[in-house]
Amino acid sequence: MRIAIPIFDQLTALDAIGPYEVLSRLPEATVHFIAVEPGPKRSENGMLAVTADLALAELTDPEVIVFPGGFGTRALMRDEAVLAWLRRAHETSTWTTSVCSGALVLAAAGILDGLRATTHWMVLEMLREYGATPTEERVVEHGKVITAAGVSAGIDMALLLAAKLADEDIARAIQLGIEYDPQPPFDSGSVAKAGPETVELVKSLRLG
Amino acid sequence: MRIAIPIFDQLTALDAIGPYEVLSRLPEATVHFIAVEPGPKRSENGMLAVTADLALAELTDPEVIVFPGGFGTRALMRDEAVLAWLRRAHETSTWTTSVCSGALVLAAAGILDGLRATTHWMVLEMLREYGATPTEERVVEHGKVITAAGVSAGIDMALLLAAKLADEDIARAIQLGIEYDPQPPFDSGSVAKAGPETVELVKSLRLG
Repeated sequence: MRIAIPIFDQLTALDAIGPYEVLSRLPEATVHFIAVEPGPKRSENGMLAVTADLALAELTDPEVIVFPGGFGTRALMRDEAVLAWLRRAHETSTWTTSVCSGALVLAAAGILDGLRATTHWMVLEMLREYGATPTEERVVEHGKVITAAGVSAGIDMALLLAAKLADEDIARAIQLGIEYDPQPPFDSGSVAKAGPETVELVKSLRLG
Repeated sequence: MRIAIPIFDQLTALDAIGPYEVLSRLPEATVHFIAVEPGPKRSENGMLAVTADLALAELTDPEVIVFPGGFGTRALMRDEAVLAWLRRAHETSTWTTSVCSGALVLAAAGILDGLRATTHWMVLEMLREYGATPTEERVVEHGKVITAAGVSAGIDMALLLAAKLADEDIARAIQLGIEYDPQPPFDSGSVAKAGPETVELVKSLRLG
């Protein structure tokens, strides 16, 4: 099974690496990091480079697509090479998924037309411009399309996907393998839980 | 503030990228991925390369060290260049931390002598051979040394660390920025919760 994770400059790295860490453990699965041009891609802050080993053109029919987010998605939404690849890959995929603002690229490709979907809370309303219905759920499933909320939500989405691609026993074992027994020291992971002052702080310090 | 994340071949990528995604958002912080030799480092399964931009010798006095794990730590535990760098950096660091089997490298450098510490559950007992006292807590703090359990535990550890390096308001805002409101579809993230059959599956399929 081939799992494609498209990457690009100005990526949010955890959007991609969270699902990778789960899905790469599936028996018989290979995760491929792919890009318009292979080579190192820098995160939004420039502090990290992750390598794309394949060009999009080298993998046009993956069984699974996981589209991560990051500020770089804004350019991809107007990049016909990326949108055409995505439409083509979605025709034959078993699952087409996104994390964070990766959903905006799926939306720009027309894949979310008429669907309920989610993305990072800061850009949630942008989905509406592309014909999707924004929802605040953490993981939204619609036929073979799954969208996840911001950044860390990709881990939860990938565990759900692992159960579909293999079975629930394997997914549970992967969860134990990555010791995913979350114990955040605070409880501010959603807009509702964090409150308006924390929301303002994220915006003023550009922490989203 | 300079935050050093040493990387190496046969790394578990999420061990490094989880804390990076949190700590890189701290105001005035720069995360540096460093290695004995700069360049791309491959994850354990070979599916992913992350770039080290600096050599260890170029950053000997970071304020914060986050040592990630992975099978590659076994070689580092006998690598005098790495151990000498770590001992030197620990002398002047504000915080010396590890995720997953990164703790084994701290232990091999003598940094965990006489301390309670944690690591991935599959290698927890190895800490004892190096004079540390293994504990099953997810994040263990001891003076300026913090060890975290397996893989995903680095995210929880990094949020705790963010509150210490900045303040709790900033840490809460970073948690919201990465939308870390965990909702795993299963509850098998620790040995106690998963039970013996899932533990056996992790071992037989090498999912740890």
